Amino acid sequence: MEQIRSLSQLLDYAKKIGAEKGPKKLSVAMAEEAGLLTAIEEARKAGFAEAILVGNGDKMKAAAEQAGVDLANYEVIDERDEPSMGISAVSQVSSKKADIYMKGQIHTNNFLRAMLNKEVGLRKGKNTISHCYFHSVEGYDRIFFIADAAFNMYPDLAAKADITQNTVGLARSFGVAEPKVAVLAAVEVVNPDMPATLDAAALTQMNRRGQIKNCIVDGPFALDNAVSEESAKTKGIVSPVAGKADIFIVPNIDAGNMLAKGIVYFSKNETAGLILGASAPIVLTSRADSTRAKLLSIAAAVTLSDFNK
Amino acid sequence: MEQIRSLSQLLDYAKKIGAEKGPKKLSVAMAEEAGLLTAIEEARKAGFAEAILVGNGDKMKAAAEQAGVDLANYEVIDERDEPSMGISAVSQVSSKKADIYMKGQIHTNNFLRAMLNKEVGLRKGKNTISHCYFHSVEGYDRIFFIADAAFNMYPDLAAKADITQNTVGLARSFGVAEPKVAVLAAVEVVNPDMPATLDAAALTQMNRRGQIKNCIVDGPFALDNAVSEESAKTKGIVSPVAGKADIFIVPNIDAGNMLAKGIVYFSKNETAGLILGASAPIVLTSRADSTRAKLLSIAAAVTLSDFNK
Repeated sequence: MEQIRSLSQLLDYAKKIGAEKGPKKLSVAMAEEAGLLTAIEEARKAGFAEAILVGNGDKMKAAAEQAGVDLANYEVIDERDEPSMGISAVSQVSSKKADIYMKGQIHTNNFLRAMLNKEVGLRKGKNTISHCYFHSVEGYDRIFFIADAAFNMYPDLAAKADITQNTVGLARSFGVAEPKVAVLAAVEVVNPDMPATLDAAALTQMNRRGQIKNCIVDGPFALDNAVSEESAKTKGIVSPVAGKADIFIVPNIDAGNMLAKGIVYFSKNETAGLILGASAPIVLTSRADSTRAKLLSIAAAVTLSDFNK
Repeated sequence: MEQIRSLSQLLDYAKKIGAEKGPKKLSVAMAEEAGLLTAIEEARKAGFAEAILVGNGDKMKAAAEQAGVDLANYEVIDERDEPSMGISAVSQVSSKKADIYMKGQIHTNNFLRAMLNKEVGLRKGKNTISHCYFHSVEGYDRIFFIADAAFNMYPDLAAKADITQNTVGLARSFGVAEPKVAVLAAVEVVNPDMPATLDAAALTQMNRRGQIKNCIVDGPFALDNAVSEESAKTKGIVSPVAGKADIFIVPNIDAGNMLAKGIVYFSKNETAGLILGASAPIVLTSRADSTRAKLLSIAAAVTLSDFNK
């Protein structure tokens, strides 16, 4: 497939999947808010998603009315307490009645507890579950994937290896056949006093030994060397990743969150996100996200789900 | 004075200082590169700086010829080894013959060793020396100051308090009478498992107790709450700093470097930097910086030097 280079292209690609293979099915925990239903309805109308809506039936009805959405187009499951909503929604996915697990108004704790449930959850063995932000940024010819800026706080090396592999899977589903992964730090040299640079060196070598697959990992990189070939040249860095990175593996949540939010607030961009590493894609948007951002996250989940089939 | 809200305005302000009070004097360690001399010459022609150039006389001559700069307009001190260049340049500042210490091609180690020299250096007691990046970003009505993204790697709380006070001094010299300081983390709640949030809480309280002065400190903030009033409102954060931050205190060099370089590479911006916390402003630009960036850093040093007089 051709590489998807912007989030607008991603949306077109999800529509193509819908048109050619039919929609994917979302299972939504606590679908009781008008903004959320608006995004789901847009995805349905665009032909790439349908949905099972789990939540308090009365509240879902009220939200649907507010959003001008006809619930007759959806499968509705009435549950009255949050833990049950999570379990009910996730079990639709683990039993293959749905393809994608999506958070509605349910508290994140209840949502994730259901996802980790041993009987009906989506955990794949000991694999680390991770978050990925992905961005179109004006002036760049490709999507940037940032992990983990939201879910794992201070991952150790083993977790970073999983995070990398999870993120590579997403990038590959977007048509980046062999993603270029820059492991970020504040500098581009290995410095024993800077733990992020040691993890970067180890991840690079794990990639060379086949422990992290389907990608080219290199690091440490300061951000400039990862995105600017000129900057890398000035510093004398020779690497297939220098200036061409698709994926940024960040040292920890502090650094990653600032980088991702810096893109959102300081650049012309479009941004969406997904939870990766489970047996199905997971959409976890926040109420503050725009309808467009929610729609793009659903499109990404549909694309990833199609790729993994 | 009126608040300087962009780096273009900063340049105008430095020119005004030059016109009204005469130029400030730079003392430059190893001024042997044409690009550097070009920036210094622009500052001289703009009327806000003159310079003592320290370095290998032959090499300075060659660089000046390449840049089309007439060395007759400068005081030139011939030194043949790097440590002597640093000592010679810094002692011009500590003996008050110059106002600003500036790095040329000298290795950073030699430059800083001279700055820390007990007899002729610029250290003020035990105060932490820190770096500050400052940025004009399209769409924002004020300059953003980020510290410390380049010099201190993993500062402890005491160092962060010094870094904050150093940065507040710079912002005040730019006419921000009472800078709003956001101590950044990945979240806006105090979380015992996230050290950056604990430092943020402590710095906020140090400010309330008068241990950090002339500013309003608040934190932790995730970046979005610090720059967007709407985002802060969505999260229910009530603070005079929310959405209005001038200064960002970052958890450590990894996070700060990514934030600052993210601005440089992903937004429409102008960026410069200074070393703060010594007895005089210190300009430490890199060869890769544009002439404009070097000129802006000199203008900032001139502005700070004038304010501290």
